[in-house]
Amino acid sequence: MNVDGQHYRTLWTEAHAGDVTAIDQTRLPHRFETVTLRTLEDAAQAIETMVVRGAPLIGATAAYGMALAMRDQADDAALRTAYDRLIRTRPTAVNLRWALDEVRGILADLPPSARCDAAYAAAAEIADEDVAINAAIGRHGLAVLEDLLRAKPGGGPLNILTHCNAGWLATVDWGTATAPIYMAHDAGLPVHVWVDETRPRNQGAFLTAWELGHHGVPHTVVPDNTGGHLMQHGQVDAVIVGTDRTTATGDVANKIGTYLKALAARDNGVPFYVALPSPTIDFSVGDGLREIPIEQRHGFEVTHISGRAEDGRIETVRIVPDGTPVANYAFDVTPARLVTGLITERGLVPAKRDSLAALFPDRLEKN
Amino acid sequence: MNVDGQHYRTLWTEAHAGDVTAIDQTRLPHRFETVTLRTLEDAAQAIETMVVRGAPLIGATAAYGMALAMRDQADDAALRTAYDRLIRTRPTAVNLRWALDEVRGILADLPPSARCDAAYAAAAEIADEDVAINAAIGRHGLAVLEDLLRAKPGGGPLNILTHCNAGWLATVDWGTATAPIYMAHDAGLPVHVWVDETRPRNQGAFLTAWELGHHGVPHTVVPDNTGGHLMQHGQVDAVIVGTDRTTATGDVANKIGTYLKALAARDNGVPFYVALPSPTIDFSVGDGLREIPIEQRHGFEVTHISGRAEDGRIETVRIVPDGTPVANYAFDVTPARLVTGLITERGLVPAKRDSLAALFPDRLEKN
Repeated sequence: MNVDGQHYRTLWTEAHAGDVTAIDQTRLPHRFETVTLRTLEDAAQAIETMVVRGAPLIGATAAYGMALAMRDQADDAALRTAYDRLIRTRPTAVNLRWALDEVRGILADLPPSARCDAAYAAAAEIADEDVAINAAIGRHGLAVLEDLLRAKPGGGPLNILTHCNAGWLATVDWGTATAPIYMAHDAGLPVHVWVDETRPRNQGAFLTAWELGHHGVPHTVVPDNTGGHLMQHGQVDAVIVGTDRTTATGDVANKIGTYLKALAARDNGVPFYVALPSPTIDFSVGDGLREIPIEQRHGFEVTHISGRAEDGRIETVRIVPDGTPVANYAFDVTPARLVTGLITERGLVPAKRDSLAALFPDRLEKN
Repeated sequence: MNVDGQHYRTLWTEAHAGDVTAIDQTRLPHRFETVTLRTLEDAAQAIETMVVRGAPLIGATAAYGMALAMRDQADDAALRTAYDRLIRTRPTAVNLRWALDEVRGILADLPPSARCDAAYAAAAEIADEDVAINAAIGRHGLAVLEDLLRAKPGGGPLNILTHCNAGWLATVDWGTATAPIYMAHDAGLPVHVWVDETRPRNQGAFLTAWELGHHGVPHTVVPDNTGGHLMQHGQVDAVIVGTDRTTATGDVANKIGTYLKALAARDNGVPFYVALPSPTIDFSVGDGLREIPIEQRHGFEVTHISGRAEDGRIETVRIVPDGTPVANYAFDVTPARLVTGLITERGLVPAKRDSLAALFPDRLEKN
């Protein structure tokens, strides 16, 4: 999307040299900087240190990491080394493994001399495919928003609440939850986004607000506590969130706190949509609440926060008393019964087993 | 309650001089310091700068502010000046006005020479009455917790979730939501408290965690997003919160985000209690959602946060991108239908008009 009028992806290759450039997301929102990845190790560290984050973007970066490795050395040992180095960067990331398997599968049968070009081509295809999937989600979501706007008494703006960052920064472009919003905004529809701050990592305030702001989409950051009150007072027309994993029955694992917003949406008759590329559907899981393990992350994310001091330094401060125990659950599961619809690249579908199976018979068969 | 084994109130008089000492709540949780109030102006500024906060504590501090004024000068002009100065400190605080009216009513008919002693006595009575009310809430709430513990399969600990700070720091002692918890803990019941961080002012992480920790009550701070997930997984046995204002029908205005926890409690069969001194019941209001105006506070509370830097300095940092619009609603309203019971100083009562009217016929008549 745009940053102050100029179009960016989160990751791109420099035409003349094959170096890869990424937006350094550890510097946002206070500084907009890019980093150049020249080696396998550069790519691995970019993933490990969260210079790049978000499942689709991690996958694309890993694919380019394979290409950077092949540019340096393309024999079988190098191929093995590159795969092993990259797979260790974020062990639980599904897209990471998928992207690496994809690239390795293509390269394995090629002679070393052909691997570098093939790796760049495969990585570019993975990146382009992510953009195409998100654009399709955006088009289907746009139709949903157009319907809501037509039905809104008194007209716009259409107020959409989102949680965490399922934005273009988490993907190569468009984002998932944000794709319908960007398409609506670009089409001239009056949209306004309530951005949940999203404690404890503040991806809403740090990333979603940054990307919406620089693309020019009207938005307001609110503490996570606020959404229920807004819905009680008719100030939210729809909720759209992303997901890390959706079950065969339509249960949705997403950033902690999503479930609370789904409850408030249900209590106030506000439609609750989940935008998702179909690879995040896990047809092997039925009951999300019982079967999806919830990652517990380090307490430091709760006890400390980084921000910009008055003199411009980025400072980390402690915001919980010394010695206080904290818990940091990363995700929660929103039961399918609270989900109005899933916005996929193939269209809007009810969060129900039969509907999902009918829309993705090909993916179902793989399980 | 106790701070590392020594009993404190939030506010007390120094026996020899009549000076008033208060815990400086602007320094918590990183520093435990007290300030001495020697003049009317000291008391007024302590309220204005939130050295003391919480409706009951503000009322008691204002009453002592009248006493400090009378110690200096006790004629009618001084009485008027003191009242006018103190009433301006927090214009919307109901307890503040009530306490000031109470003290002024007593002093007005007395000769100036008798006013100083009478003012101290009235202030002490207001403080002691707050302690007595909260202790009564604690006893009634303790019975609720004992019942829950007896019914809990497998026994303790009893996990209680609370939001914001309705603790002893908001009152003279005991707190409201925390009174049953302190009584249970002091009686040897195994209790553990999930403390909502409570963005944007972080009263849970800054104050509730501090007071529970220093009294020795087991607790864990969680981001506000977490409570729903905990309830889905059977990790919350009861929610207890305070309230700023409860309607005649049992709707509860409390810190923003309370409603979301009430929804999660209902969805998971977790009892949701509100602890309240009866003066916070507003019998003139029926529909909380439509009739209670919700204060919007300064965006700075959302865009910035203070914490302790590594070198010990208290530093304020910006945590939202420059120029980003924010909204900061201070309260929300939890409809009575989501409230399991109100714990008052006269006992546990359903959040229903008839039940409240029957328990407080004397207060009802005043409206």
